[in-house]
Amino acid sequence: MKNVEHIGIAVSDLSAAEKLYSALLNTIPYKREAVESEQVTTSFFKINQTKIELLEATGPDSAIARFIEKKGEGIHHIAFEVEDIVAEMERLRNAGFTLLNETPKRGADNKLVCFVHPKSANGVLIELCQEIR
Amino acid sequence: MKNVEHIGIAVSDLSAAEKLYSALLNTIPYKREAVESEQVTTSFFKINQTKIELLEATGPDSAIARFIEKKGEGIHHIAFEVEDIVAEMERLRNAGFTLLNETPKRGADNKLVCFVHPKSANGVLIELCQEIR
Repeated sequence: MKNVEHIGIAVSDLSAAEKLYSALLNTIPYKREAVESEQVTTSFFKINQTKIELLEATGPDSAIARFIEKKGEGIHHIAFEVEDIVAEMERLRNAGFTLLNETPKRGADNKLVCFVHPKSANGVLIELCQEIR
Repeated sequence: MKNVEHIGIAVSDLSAAEKLYSALLNTIPYKREAVESEQVTTSFFKINQTKIELLEATGPDSAIARFIEKKGEGIHHIAFEVEDIVAEMERLRNAGFTLLNETPKRGADNKLVCFVHPKSANGVLIELCQEIR
């Protein structure tokens, strides 16, 4: 694990949350990006090495819609940057962690991603991500 | 906001969580610290610039005990390092955020801390922290 690449926050209203987090973090989002496969729109802030990713669902089957329905708005996941996502997935699988996808999938922000089941990690949804070069 | 100083994770069993996060993060915790005023024991991992802080309650009135009772184990807060906590508290108060303490208080890891109410920030408990020099 190289660093905390970003923290994902599930929000109901992306525009309102962008305003609020701009005031909170004293900086403005540097991009918005839709991830159609995940039915989300994302908005990114950069605080030094780490990004804050706001996520709004664009459809009722989105994991973000289900998360908010169940738990309300709040922190959705922590993403760690890794050098080699395939090797890291193999390492975690061998250590007994449950992965939510068998092979890396395309995420936001030009990344390959994989999620570790929150039941494997004290209720925390962990994302591994690797920049696509 | 200088950087994401740490992410706090509420756990029921600190020793078990330390083992699990050692396997997950592929590194071991570098210290344990009790914060008696908050009725918690903390354990810290360092991943580059950002720490992962596991928090176990040591009494039923601890905020961590109440959090786990209400929501289960999981991510409890995001802490941002600031240069001048008093100035940053004033800035946020003026921007309409609700602060959970009126003046900075002593936290774990040699820090002055202040929390922003989660209702002010889309369900996310935000900590400001400043190293005590």
